[in-house]
Amino acid sequence: MTLEEKTAQLYGVWVGAATDGDGVAPHQHDMTVEHSEEEWAELITQGLGQLTRSFGTAPVDPALGAQALARAQRRIAEAGRFGIPAVAHEECLAGFTAWQATAYPVPLAWGAAWDPPLVEEMARRIGEDLRSVGVHQGLAPVLDVVRDPRWGRVEETIGEDPYLVGTIGTAYVRGLEAAGVVATLKHFAGYASSAGARNLAPVRAGIREFADVTLPPFEMALREGGARSVMAAYNETDGVPASADPELLTRLLREEWGFTGTVVADYFGIGFLQTLHRVAGTPAEAAHAALAAGIDVELPTVKCYGPPLLDAVRAGQVPEELVDRAARRVLLQKCELGLLDEDWTPEPAGPVTLDSTGNRVLARRLAEESVVLLDNPDGLLPLAPDTRIAVVGPRAADALAMLGCYSFPSHVLTHHPGVPAGIEIPTVLDALRTELPDAKVTFAQGCDVTDPDTAGFDEAVARTAEADVCVAVLGDRAGLFGRGTSGEGCDASDLGLPGVQGALLDALVATGVPVVLVLLTGRPYALGRWRGRLGAVVQAFFPGEEGGPAVAGVLSGRVNPSGHLPVSVPREPGGQPWTYLQPPLGLAGEVSNLDPTPLYAFGHGRSYTSFAWEDATGGDTEIGTDGGCDLAVTVRNTGDREGAEVVQLYLHDPVASVTRPDVRLVGYQRVVLAPGEAARVTFRFHTDLSAFTDRSGRRVVEPGALELRLAASSTDVRHTAHLTLTGPVRVTGTGRRLRCETEVAEVG
Amino acid sequence: MTLEEKTAQLYGVWVGAATDGDGVAPHQHDMTVEHSEEEWAELITQGLGQLTRSFGTAPVDPALGAQALARAQRRIAEAGRFGIPAVAHEECLAGFTAWQATAYPVPLAWGAAWDPPLVEEMARRIGEDLRSVGVHQGLAPVLDVVRDPRWGRVEETIGEDPYLVGTIGTAYVRGLEAAGVVATLKHFAGYASSAGARNLAPVRAGIREFADVTLPPFEMALREGGARSVMAAYNETDGVPASADPELLTRLLREEWGFTGTVVADYFGIGFLQTLHRVAGTPAEAAHAALAAGIDVELPTVKCYGPPLLDAVRAGQVPEELVDRAARRVLLQKCELGLLDEDWTPEPAGPVTLDSTGNRVLARRLAEESVVLLDNPDGLLPLAPDTRIAVVGPRAADALAMLGCYSFPSHVLTHHPGVPAGIEIPTVLDALRTELPDAKVTFAQGCDVTDPDTAGFDEAVARTAEADVCVAVLGDRAGLFGRGTSGEGCDASDLGLPGVQGALLDALVATGVPVVLVLLTGRPYALGRWRGRLGAVVQAFFPGEEGGPAVAGVLSGRVNPSGHLPVSVPREPGGQPWTYLQPPLGLAGEVSNLDPTPLYAFGHGRSYTSFAWEDATGGDTEIGTDGGCDLAVTVRNTGDREGAEVVQLYLHDPVASVTRPDVRLVGYQRVVLAPGEAARVTFRFHTDLSAFTDRSGRRVVEPGALELRLAASSTDVRHTAHLTLTGPVRVTGTGRRLRCETEVAEVG
Repeated sequence: MTLEEKTAQLYGVWVGAATDGDGVAPHQHDMTVEHSEEEWAELITQGLGQLTRSFGTAPVDPALGAQALARAQRRIAEAGRFGIPAVAHEECLAGFTAWQATAYPVPLAWGAAWDPPLVEEMARRIGEDLRSVGVHQGLAPVLDVVRDPRWGRVEETIGEDPYLVGTIGTAYVRGLEAAGVVATLKHFAGYASSAGARNLAPVRAGIREFADVTLPPFEMALREGGARSVMAAYNETDGVPASADPELLTRLLREEWGFTGTVVADYFGIGFLQTLHRVAGTPAEAAHAALAAGIDVELPTVKCYGPPLLDAVRAGQVPEELVDRAARRVLLQKCELGLLDEDWTPEPAGPVTLDSTGNRVLARRLAEESVVLLDNPDGLLPLAPDTRIAVVGPRAADALAMLGCYSFPSHVLTHHPGVPAGIEIPTVLDALRTELPDAKVTFAQGCDVTDPDTAGFDEAVARTAEADVCVAVLGDRAGLFGRGTSGEGCDASDLGLPGVQGALLDALVATGVPVVLVLLTGRPYALGRWRGRLGAVVQAFFPGEEGGPAVAGVLSGRVNPSGHLPVSVPREPGGQPWTYLQPPLGLAGEVSNLDPTPLYAFGHGRSYTSFAWEDATGGDTEIGTDGGCDLAVTVRNTGDREGAEVVQLYLHDPVASVTRPDVRLVGYQRVVLAPGEAARVTFRFHTDLSAFTDRSGRRVVEPGALELRLAASSTDVRHTAHLTLTGPVRVTGTGRRLRCETEVAEVG
Repeated sequence: MTLEEKTAQLYGVWVGAATDGDGVAPHQHDMTVEHSEEEWAELITQGLGQLTRSFGTAPVDPALGAQALARAQRRIAEAGRFGIPAVAHEECLAGFTAWQATAYPVPLAWGAAWDPPLVEEMARRIGEDLRSVGVHQGLAPVLDVVRDPRWGRVEETIGEDPYLVGTIGTAYVRGLEAAGVVATLKHFAGYASSAGARNLAPVRAGIREFADVTLPPFEMALREGGARSVMAAYNETDGVPASADPELLTRLLREEWGFTGTVVADYFGIGFLQTLHRVAGTPAEAAHAALAAGIDVELPTVKCYGPPLLDAVRAGQVPEELVDRAARRVLLQKCELGLLDEDWTPEPAGPVTLDSTGNRVLARRLAEESVVLLDNPDGLLPLAPDTRIAVVGPRAADALAMLGCYSFPSHVLTHHPGVPAGIEIPTVLDALRTELPDAKVTFAQGCDVTDPDTAGFDEAVARTAEADVCVAVLGDRAGLFGRGTSGEGCDASDLGLPGVQGALLDALVATGVPVVLVLLTGRPYALGRWRGRLGAVVQAFFPGEEGGPAVAGVLSGRVNPSGHLPVSVPREPGGQPWTYLQPPLGLAGEVSNLDPTPLYAFGHGRSYTSFAWEDATGGDTEIGTDGGCDLAVTVRNTGDREGAEVVQLYLHDPVASVTRPDVRLVGYQRVVLAPGEAARVTFRFHTDLSAFTDRSGRRVVEPGALELRLAASSTDVRHTAHLTLTGPVRVTGTGRRLRCETEVAEVG
């Protein structure tokens, strides 16, 4: 292949099918050059690495879009000398970001469900839908670990614990890859730790935080999930941009972890090395830095990897071997995807349906499992069937209240006013009326999500005063770059409820009528101000197209809530950043007036039934620093209805050579139990799970005492086992165990 | 010396003179063991390293205290075999923390004055006062660089720029050491960067931030100031507690920087290795870790370095060489201090006066230079002599509003109700009545600093409505561990004005009468809410016992304000942490809805006169990466009264191998000019000042373009010079230039 043909494999072009499906046309975008038909024909003569978001750019009928994409692929294959089509990629985090495609709950809701198999099943369905229209690569999952809940993209993460993010993220990867779609781990790495939680702001972090909190989910998703692509993150950490970091993208990722897939740029991320990071003086220097670091593909469209790179290679400023290395990886992946097979055919194999009944059933189940009952002190929930209910709040009757910023309606349709969502999205108000047909349900919006106008308060208070109970549905509006209160570029300066929603809640509480607070949000918000003043608190994280029925089901009692928090819910709006992974000095103490400990702890969640934890055994023993032991506990449903408990295993390391989190999650198991039923949950703990990065940067297991805590949340400990590790400090290898295997057995 | 005698040199005992000066008695403290007279006699038989805060613990007449300390020293010297007295140390940051001693402006006010010689003179006076009563070591200055303005100890810092902190901190060290007193650099290192700004919370930072922001002031104060002691910080950085870090306390401090003095523990900091950091399992392990890292002296009293250390050495668990190493350093310092001289005598040489007229004159001058006029859009200030003035606010009539948390009245006298301050501290209200005897001054407090009661608003509004102008004096109450709104352990969850003071200000502004906001604070507060609505804004950082007259002098016009901000004043209360040292992505941009840029920028400050910047020359040249060049500018006072301008030099590095702050301070010069007078300020820039820590951890000067900006603040650029560095990347050595020398010449 010529240099031109090789470099053509290293970038994408942003295309978008016209809404009538008539051809995949080069798409105009703020930050891309608009290509004319002539330019397009010229562009593909050397081949093309990637096609960017044929479906995710404008509302296009999926079946027509699939045909258009196929035509484009044939053109690309026919235009070049070797007949190589492009890899087509799309966004697909909480469902394929395409018109008429299922909008599943957002990742933070997956984190709340603590149910990896269900997430795997969802991802498999997403992958199959992508494949059905000719898409090869999905730019998901997000494996960033929350480090500051003010960040706008918290909704796209699975939570604030690396083990939870890693296990659920890996399940997602398995599902997507099982459907033959390339999963893309992002954002590699550190993006969630931006200072002040502002999107893309510099990350202040050291090597141990990076190794022990940021990286583990990626390692797990590669080793156990088999992801075939990784996206380099926008951010810098301690001065070094990830997209120009060979230590990260080559030494660690490929040489240490053995990754052989492709590394793709985040959109415009290579150019940002020049314009935003200023570690490159020209597009060619940016291309050189990114290529040398290990980015194989420039996305979404060609800027640095086109003529600037070509010229630099020709001028001897960039070694052609770097181009070869990247092109080889891209072509190898195309081989694996069958794009170079003789019988390759891009046309859709069958009818296209992106929101099947099966999808919706799964979306419903995941939504139901993800709803967290934070508080229900007097048993106000479930609501009686014939209750007079005042539904209040700006999130109660808005379908978009269910969706995250990467859902097609929030992400794209805001630019296409008048185009319907393309999927059915019942609101909480709709669903509550369906769930409780005998209830007298009134509605008053009260206020907007962000508008400061309080003129609607009076009506909301009046409706509440006439009711037996008020259901206040408050929260976020997902959007991009300032168009919402949650989502990419929608960062919060503090964790107070957006707009005047807090004042509305004050006014409702002041009526004396019991208030059920229902939050539909993309991040946790501070609730200390209403502590002890609410009838019940229900937290849902953008629960998707079936989220309305899921929430209403919890309110009505049809659904027994089983979600547990993947993020801490703070007391006060200020004092961030904080997550539960804190050494003793990060917790409350006498040395500061501020108490950062949360109102509701990581892992917390209530049920309408009750569980007894019995016969905990194991762990009180001495083992080598390379040993393991089993812990077991019997969980019994002692209430009168079916429910699910999440048995959590936390590690406490009393003394170590560096400071350690007081507790951190090292295992968990969701168990569904009928009334009276019991199950024995066994955790196969291995010392690898106690490993951490020491002062020299090695990951080690140290001898000494360890505590293993069986718990219903990070602070609700039911049983503690005292383990003693003996022997030498052990450096763990690349084969270390990343996961605590569990077994569940029925108990007679 | 026996092992017991050697270890006895490695710790202090907390003593306090009785208020009548009758003997320095062992002092009871929450966290120390109370020693009986018998224990005290026994304790000193082996010798004693340090005496802790004989004066700084309770109100004691200085002359009597000095005699008591002398008696205690004679007892110690006579009790041991070698006749070695103790080193007596005290707190002395913004003045000797002793009864009746001068309370100077706090360090943040020194930062605002940009006048190192004046700070040096202050420190020399502090040192002489310490020496006059027998004290050898002062636990100052604080060289922490502000990384999050919410931190309670911001008032104790010099600001958010390492160069400003380094130059002014070094001046302080020179002054204290010139008086023969050991200066103690603290807190070494990283303490100011705690997550969420909570006191002692873990620090999330990487090696480049640590090397380029945290460490430079310490290096400068050691190399250029000659400090003879360093205090190990409480905090951990990225998991490693400073007090157990041999890389920091030995490899860097001694082997690289060549430090030969003593390293002392922060109070209780060695024990914290066990109890709060959990990197040691026992007091003996804590002692071992601290001693091995390089802490020579345990303060304030013996815990780990006593019997636990002795037993561990005897058991062979701690090498005796570590004890020898520390004891040698302590004894060497005692030699240097003359404590082992034959003619050593602890009795005071002359009469003791800790608040001399000379002190007060200096305190006044520094206070006057430190007041920052942030805004005066319509020339409301200075006030006319016969104005009707409503003075309002909880800080207007409280003497303690002038003082920081380490002042004796705030630090100690709160535990001794009824004991007078011992020094004269005019309030702003007092001073304004003195400054403007013909004005009609009324006063209403309006509210408390923190109490939510708004009952006083009405009177404050009424007084304002009757006046020509309202002077609203708002701000902080300094205190310790939650007893104040600023100070050690008094951290802010956001940067909103404490309590209901913001609401009071709203009410005053609503009257329509012009409001002059006077802030007496320990940190910057968000003022965006009042942008364009205030008649004038005056910022003073706890300006000390002469701060009332200084502020009133600015209001009356007697003093022409010349202070410039050592910290940014933000727009909004949330969104922290932020300081001005930001690469492009840390500034405002399209990628986040949040705009972190400040309302008033680092370096900003207004005057009652005006200055022209003329004939800027130099810098537009090509030099080697080991070269230098001169930049010069003529500053002319174009107004009708004397005033001072602060000429600031900022560096902008357009492209580097790691991300760099958009601008950072590399030089400055304060120039006082009579009306019409001009001065030519020349900066002798050297490329060493452009050095930074690269990816490999080396400090380098890179070739390429640099911009040098002559500016009146970090954002008010008056002249830009374009410099090109040629030649190879240069690794700077330990002799690199740390300071940009300046020259000031009169212009005809």
